[in-house]
This record gives sequence, structure tokens and C-alpha cells, in this order.
Amino acid sequence: MVVTIDRKYGSGGRMVGEKLAKRLGYRFFDRELLKIAAQESGMHEDVVQHFDEKPTGSLLYSAYLHATISVTDALPLNQKLAFAQFDVIRRVAEEGDCVIVGRCADYVLQDRDDCLNVFITATNAVRRQRLVQYYGVPQELVDKTIKKQDKTRADYYTFFTQRKWGDASNYHLCLDAGRLSLDGAAALLADAVHQLEGK
Amino acid sequence: MVVTIDRKYGSGGRMVGEKLAKRLGYRFFDRELLKIAAQESGMHEDVVQHFDEKPTGSLLYSAYLHATISVTDALPLNQKLAFAQFDVIRRVAEEGDCVIVGRCADYVLQDRDDCLNVFITATNAVRRQRLVQYYGVPQELVDKTIKKQDKTRADYYTFFTQRKWGDASNYHLCLDAGRLSLDGAAALLADAVHQLEGK
Repeated sequence: MVVTIDRKYGSGGRMVGEKLAKRLGYRFFDRELLKIAAQESGMHEDVVQHFDEKPTGSLLYSAYLHATISVTDALPLNQKLAFAQFDVIRRVAEEGDCVIVGRCADYVLQDRDDCLNVFITATNAVRRQRLVQYYGVPQELVDKTIKKQDKTRADYYTFFTQRKWGDASNYHLCLDAGRLSLDGAAALLADAVHQLEGK
Repeated sequence: MVVTIDRKYGSGGRMVGEKLAKRLGYRFFDRELLKIAAQESGMHEDVVQHFDEKPTGSLLYSAYLHATISVTDALPLNQKLAFAQFDVIRRVAEEGDCVIVGRCADYVLQDRDDCLNVFITATNAVRRQRLVQYYGVPQELVDKTIKKQDKTRADYYTFFTQRKWGDASNYHLCLDAGRLSLDGAAALLADAVHQLEGK
């Protein structure tokens, strides 16, 4: 079984994924995908981390990159990294049970019938608190950061999948990790995986 | 605890709700809300059933009603029925544990902290099959019916709530009742309710 987990920024989705992987004894992939993809593409990890889960053609990142490399060079690098990660996603899924966070994994693996596609949300209040407490984001920047990161993830997802990020129709299970808890969400997802394994 | 369940047309969401209510020993409200609201508003059930979960101001229903009553009379009746149902929803929630299907119950009860708001989906393939098998919809009308009914529910929800119907952010749990099963979905939801009861 492959569990793909997408998540609103600051929802605790990555931690739910880690806890789920531990419960199930599954491998866990998040940033690891970036590292593998970078190595295999001959790109340096420090350079490509700026492109991870960023929408291709984003003006924001074009501007950011303008000082170091030309925009025309930047756009293919975005895509190159994304496609390299998609290749890694297909391979790790092929190798067996795992939990994969982000990077359009639900879409990349849509032809497999052994996936459980998950989306993790939380209210803005819960996300604000998490950003301050765990990410060290200053209080006055919290709302701006949430909005910007959600938009970046949504644009990235929609660019590659032509689907609407966070629409319940695109996932098998969506969970509010604030209304439940990170452990509670992981427990429910583990139940769902066990149901599907027995199907 | 109050579990509200909204659902894509033909997803099996109402049946998941019934199964959940049975598992938990909760009261179950779907069409019953219409009946109670009609009685209390002095409206006849046969008349108001055409207005149930229909968006106010829908041209479609204005046209439909044109032959029997004037459009200006029709619009307030839509709203009157919706608000009567919202009153009933508040009252049955106040009276204790229950499962409520549709009718913006998640929004109506948003100030309560004992709710679990659920949205049930299924793929179009699963919904098509259900429509033919259980609702007796002719094969050639299935896609049109699904599209029309989803739009009606979405318009109704958005009109009264100003929220996007089916967006994962608006619910605590969204489930694909085809990927799991109706019983499996009900079992997961019962687990979630038990988690929250113990919180």
C-alpha cells in the first residue's frame, strides 16, 4: 500500500504522515525525495531546495532567481526537478509500502489501485499557533506566510495535475488534524489502510 | 455529539449516515427535517418537498414554479423552508446525539463545539453505477443527473453559507465511500466520534 499525504501549510500533515508510517512500519518520504531526485539529476541539493514544490513559472521565484541565474534557465530547472521527483515517487511506490508527503504523489500514482490519497487540513487558528510554536514564525508574519505557502502549494499542484488542490473529490480521505489530533488522525488513517488491505 | 454529513449526489452518503447512526445509537435526520419544518411552518409537505435543498433564486426552479405560483411568491417560500429547517436542526442538536444529513447543518451548528462535520464523496464511476442500480436512473441520463444534482446542492450550500461546497477545509472529515465501503466509512466515522468523545 502507498499512502499519499498532501497538506495545508502548518496543518501538521507531515507529522501525521510520520506517525502513520511508524504505526504501519512503512517507509516515509518527504524531503528525502528531493535529495534522491537531486542526486540522480546531477543537481546540487542546496540549489534545488529552492525549487521544491514550487509552481513552474511563478513570478515570485523567477524574481528571486533573477540575481543568480536567468529566468529562462530557471523555468526548466523547476520542471526538471519536479519530473525527477515524480520518477522517484513511482520507483519508491514500486518498491513497496510507503507514506509519501506532497509533490503531487496522488496524481503521479493515479494508475495504481493500491493507494490511499489523503489531504490534511486544520483551521487557521490551529495553523497560526503551530507556525509560532514550532516554526518560529513571528506573530505579525503568520497570516501572510500561511496564505503565501498555501498558494504556492496550490499552484504547484494545479500546474502539474490540472486539479483543484484541497477539493475533497480528489482524495480518499481528508482530515482536520486540529479537530482530531495528530495521533488521532494517524490512528484513523491506519484503520483505513487496514480496511483496504483486507479488501 | 452531532455528526453532520453532506454528500455528493449518488455517493452513498445518506446510507453511511444511517449506518453510522445505527452503530452509535444516535437519532438520524434526513428528510425528517423537511417534514417537521413543513408542519411547524404550516406548509404542506407535498408542496415543500420541491424546495428541499434547492438554492434560493435558482432560475431552474423559478421556471418550474412559474405555472403554479408566481416567482415572487416562490422565492420567499424557498427561504422560509430553509430557515424553518435550520431552526429544526438547531433544536434536534440541542436535544442530544444525532446524525444530520445535508441542509447546511455544518454551517447552522458552527457555534457548537460538539460537532463532527463530514463530507462523503465517490468517483463518478461509482456514482453512475449507484444511480442506475438503486435510483433507477436510465443510463443515458446518469451524467446529466449527477451534474445537475451536484450543482443544485452546491448552489444551495453556497447561497446560505458563502462557503465552497466540497472544499476539504470546511469539514473535519471527508471520505470516499467508494474507495472504502459504506460500512467501512461508517466504521471510521464511528472511530472518529469515539476519539472526540474521549477528548
